[in-house]
Amino acid sequence: MGMRGTLYGVGVGPGDPELMSLKAARILKSVPVVAFFAKKGATGNARRAVDGHLNPEAELVRLDYPFTTELPESDPHYRAALAEFYDAAAASLGARLDRGQDVAVLCAGDPFFYGSYAHLHERLAPTHVCEVIPGITAMSGCWTRALTPMTCGDEMLTVLSGTMPAEMLAHRLAGSDAVVIMKVGRNLAKIRQALAHAGMLERAIYVERGTMPEERILRLADKPDDEAAYFGIVLVPGARKPL
Amino acid sequence: MGMRGTLYGVGVGPGDPELMSLKAARILKSVPVVAFFAKKGATGNARRAVDGHLNPEAELVRLDYPFTTELPESDPHYRAALAEFYDAAAASLGARLDRGQDVAVLCAGDPFFYGSYAHLHERLAPTHVCEVIPGITAMSGCWTRALTPMTCGDEMLTVLSGTMPAEMLAHRLAGSDAVVIMKVGRNLAKIRQALAHAGMLERAIYVERGTMPEERILRLADKPDDEAAYFGIVLVPGARKPL
Repeated sequence: MGMRGTLYGVGVGPGDPELMSLKAARILKSVPVVAFFAKKGATGNARRAVDGHLNPEAELVRLDYPFTTELPESDPHYRAALAEFYDAAAASLGARLDRGQDVAVLCAGDPFFYGSYAHLHERLAPTHVCEVIPGITAMSGCWTRALTPMTCGDEMLTVLSGTMPAEMLAHRLAGSDAVVIMKVGRNLAKIRQALAHAGMLERAIYVERGTMPEERILRLADKPDDEAAYFGIVLVPGARKPL
Repeated sequence: MGMRGTLYGVGVGPGDPELMSLKAARILKSVPVVAFFAKKGATGNARRAVDGHLNPEAELVRLDYPFTTELPESDPHYRAALAEFYDAAAASLGARLDRGQDVAVLCAGDPFFYGSYAHLHERLAPTHVCEVIPGITAMSGCWTRALTPMTCGDEMLTVLSGTMPAEMLAHRLAGSDAVVIMKVGRNLAKIRQALAHAGMLERAIYVERGTMPEERILRLADKPDDEAAYFGIVLVPGARKPL
């Protein structure tokens, strides 16, 4: 048996290509195969975040999600179709690894923090050498651009999904210090209400596409409508003042 | 009045110098002044994380913490002494900015995630131009090296400090999905008990100095003693299986 290639899960950071790590840039320059997830018809955030940093000789493998809108995770049809999609993607990349090619999978943010890469890793790590390169998360990119220190001293940070039911959201906000709410999308009215109830609305900041050219940052209380991007993030910095 | 310099809060990542961003590396190559925090007698994690990446001509400004061990944050003497320390550090860097020099402050991990930089930022941002460069957090470095996906789908992540009282720790663990406990240090016995009570001990992983040469990674249940480094981190990956 010849040498098998290595699978690299490469965190490419929050969007600005200059925010990938030196190690990510080195690996992307050297691998013969670069794979990335994208929604049909879109470039994909991870692909955009490496603009100017790919080896022009590399084969690009685009992995098109089978859905263009988010469905409830509990939907068994959705889960089955996604599992089938990840099976096929793993088989396609596995064939290249078996031929001895190294393969890098681009991951927006950090590969092990809400990343699709985990689904490939689960399938390929038992039989192939995998290395994961951490990345700067979208939330770090967002609070940096908002120039807002998030946590100080012994404060806790709670990261929630905007898709949670209202009661659970309210329950998890209670007693939290700093909060990040991801996947805002169609959930902004519910999130706003939960934050107001928890006394956190005044501190809340809405950020869309932090570190990217289309970046938007505003106090949530100043946002007149409840329209929000799927990748929109709400930040509630901890209330503690620096010393 | 001449042009004032810019203050850069530069996230240098979890420890491995190759995990800083391209932007951090570019700024560190160009600034005439590089400041960093350290405990007396130690090199400082942030300083080590940029080995090989500083301009040899740059002036290094070492900011020695006034304490070598952590005291309770509530101690008024501790708070006053730290506030005085940050006042002096801000004055010293501010003088260089006023002379027109750009100043980079090295920040282990991400500057706005439990970073000392926030204390300088509060003091200097009202009067000086500040730019913050996000970084890969220590926790990302640790879960990457442990090869452990942390959060999937709609799971929540809770980041806690090991210094919390036992009851609060138990309260915040209940109902959480993925958990990171920072500042483990002398608190490991208490943390272990709280995790066992929450049914999370089996999933827990102890990581020390992730991505650094002295890295240690083991299942917490396999750790025979409760000795832990101040910078030790406990990871509890979410229980959800990838699709």
